[in-house]
Amino acid sequence: MTLDNHSPVGISKWQIADAFAEKQDQICKALEEADGKAHFREDLWKREGGGGGRTRVIANGNVFEKGGVNTSTVYGPLPKYLGNHVNPEATEFFATGISIVIHPSNPHVPIIHMNVRYFESDRGDKWFGGGIDLTPIYVVPEQAKLFHRALKEVCDRFDPTYYTEFSRQADDYFFISHRNETRGIGGIFFDYLRPADEQSFEKLFAFVLAVADTFAPIYLEQVSAGRDLPYSESEKHWQTIRRGRYVEFNLVYDKGTRFGLETNGRTESILMSLPPEVRWEYDHKCLSGSREEETLSWLRKGVNWVDV
Amino acid sequence: MTLDNHSPVGISKWQIADAFAEKQDQICKALEEADGKAHFREDLWKREGGGGGRTRVIANGNVFEKGGVNTSTVYGPLPKYLGNHVNPEATEFFATGISIVIHPSNPHVPIIHMNVRYFESDRGDKWFGGGIDLTPIYVVPEQAKLFHRALKEVCDRFDPTYYTEFSRQADDYFFISHRNETRGIGGIFFDYLRPADEQSFEKLFAFVLAVADTFAPIYLEQVSAGRDLPYSESEKHWQTIRRGRYVEFNLVYDKGTRFGLETNGRTESILMSLPPEVRWEYDHKCLSGSREEETLSWLRKGVNWVDV
Repeated sequence: MTLDNHSPVGISKWQIADAFAEKQDQICKALEEADGKAHFREDLWKREGGGGGRTRVIANGNVFEKGGVNTSTVYGPLPKYLGNHVNPEATEFFATGISIVIHPSNPHVPIIHMNVRYFESDRGDKWFGGGIDLTPIYVVPEQAKLFHRALKEVCDRFDPTYYTEFSRQADDYFFISHRNETRGIGGIFFDYLRPADEQSFEKLFAFVLAVADTFAPIYLEQVSAGRDLPYSESEKHWQTIRRGRYVEFNLVYDKGTRFGLETNGRTESILMSLPPEVRWEYDHKCLSGSREEETLSWLRKGVNWVDV
Repeated sequence: MTLDNHSPVGISKWQIADAFAEKQDQICKALEEADGKAHFREDLWKREGGGGGRTRVIANGNVFEKGGVNTSTVYGPLPKYLGNHVNPEATEFFATGISIVIHPSNPHVPIIHMNVRYFESDRGDKWFGGGIDLTPIYVVPEQAKLFHRALKEVCDRFDPTYYTEFSRQADDYFFISHRNETRGIGGIFFDYLRPADEQSFEKLFAFVLAVADTFAPIYLEQVSAGRDLPYSESEKHWQTIRRGRYVEFNLVYDKGTRFGLETNGRTESILMSLPPEVRWEYDHKCLSGSREEETLSWLRKGVNWVDV
C-alpha cells in the first residue's frame, strides 16, 4: 500500500477528504444564512511536506463575531509527535479533518466547537476521531439538555454505548484542570476509533459524517434561542472573562492546537479558534446568587445533561 | 543537611527569601509612587505541601492597567517535573523567587517582566535563575538601547561575559516560534547558575539582587518616556493585538507558567501575568510603512540593542 493508492477498504482516504470538504460547504452555507450579514472569507494554503487546507473565517456578523470552519488534508513523513499511536514501522501519514469554532457576539449564544478527523499511516493504522462541545456564557439547563439529547440521538443511531462513553470522554477532555472547571457543558469526544474490518470502517465513517451533519441544526437551535435576547454591559463583560478560560484551555491543553503549533501548522488557521475580545482580571469573583455564579456551578464533570 | 538548617554556605536560603521579600516591598513602593493613583492589593497564600506566597497586584491606575509583583517561597517533596536538573537522589526542594509582570494602559509604555529565583535540593543542588525583558507595543530603538545598556551595566559589574551570554539566552527564551517573532526586544535570561563555592554563591546572590534593584529605575525610565504621550484608538487596538501574542507566549511556552499550572500552583498568582484586555483577529496585517509594521521588523533575534 502506498499513500497514493486507495485504502484497502472500499472507501479511499481521498473520498473521506472530499466528504469533509462537502460538509464544510454545507455548514458554511447554513451559518451564513443564519447570520444574514457576514460571509466566509476563504484562504487556501499549502503545507510544506504535503497537503494543505481550506480555511474559512467569518467575522463581525449579525450573530457571529468571529469563527472558522476549516478543512485540511495533510500527508507526508510521519511527525514524531504521533509515535505512540502508530505502528513503529510507519514512516508516512495521511490526515484529513474539519475543525470549527464559533464565537457569537451575544453572550446568550454559546461558543461551539466541532471537529471530525481521519488518520492513516503507511503501515495500516487507521482511525477516526472528533467531538463537539458547547460553551455557554450563561448555562441554561433546558438548552444544554436539547444539545445533549440531539448528540445522544446521533450516537444511538450507531451504537448504544457511544453517547455514554463519548460524553464521559468529553468531560475529561474539555477540562481546565488549573481552574478545576469544565470548559462548558461538554458534548462528545472520541479518538482512535479503529475499524476492525471494512464494515466497521463504513460504520465509523458514517458516524463522523452524521456528527458533522448534526452540527448546523444542533447549533442553530442554540443560536435561535439566544440571538435576539437583550444583554447588558455586565453580561458582555462576563463573556470576555469566560472567553479567557476558552483561551486558557486551547493554548494550555488542547491537543489539536498544541500539535498544530509544534508541527509547524498554519498558525492563523490553528488560532482562528481564539476569541475576538478577551479579558483577564485578577481573582475575578461572581456575585453570590448571580447567574454567573450559577453558571460556574454547572461547570463540572458528570452532569447528566440528558435528564437534567 | 536538612531543609530546616542553613545552607552549607554563609547565606541561608531563608535569608535569600527575606531579601526577595524586601525587594518586593521596594519595587511595589516605587511603582505606586510612579502611578500616583492605584495601590497594590496583597493576598497571602499557603501552598499545600509547604510554603506559600505573597501576591501583590495593581489595577486600573494612572499608568498601570494590570500588574503583579509576587514572591513565593515553596518547599517540600521534589516535583517530578524537575527530574533532569537535580541529583537523582534528591527528594526535597526549596525554591524562592520574585515574579513581576506589568501591563500599562498607554500603548507607548512597554509591558515588562522580571523574575529572579533561587532553588536548592536536599542533595546539594543549588542554582539561581532569572531574567528581565521588555515588550514595547511600539519599538522605539532609542528606548530599547537605554534598556539594554542599563542591563549590560549591571551584568558587567559582575562578569564581562554575562550580558552577551544572557541577552542571547533571552532572545532564545522569549521567542514565539509559531509566529517566528521574539516577544519583544529581549533583555537578559539566565538559569541553573550553580555556585562552585561560597564566594561564587555570594557573587551570584549579589547579581540577582542587583538585577532586582535595577528593575524599578530601568522600568520607570521607560514609563516616563511614554506615559504622557497621547494615543489613538488604533494604537490602543494594536496594543490588544500585541497583548494576544504575550498570552500566546505565556500559555504555550513560558516554563514558569506551565510549571506552576502543572504542579498545582496558585492559579490566580501565576496568571496575574495575563493582560487585561486582549484581541485576536484572524490574519491581522499591518499597513505597509506603518509604525506597527516597523515594530514587527524589530521582533527578531540577534539585534545588537546596545549599539542600535
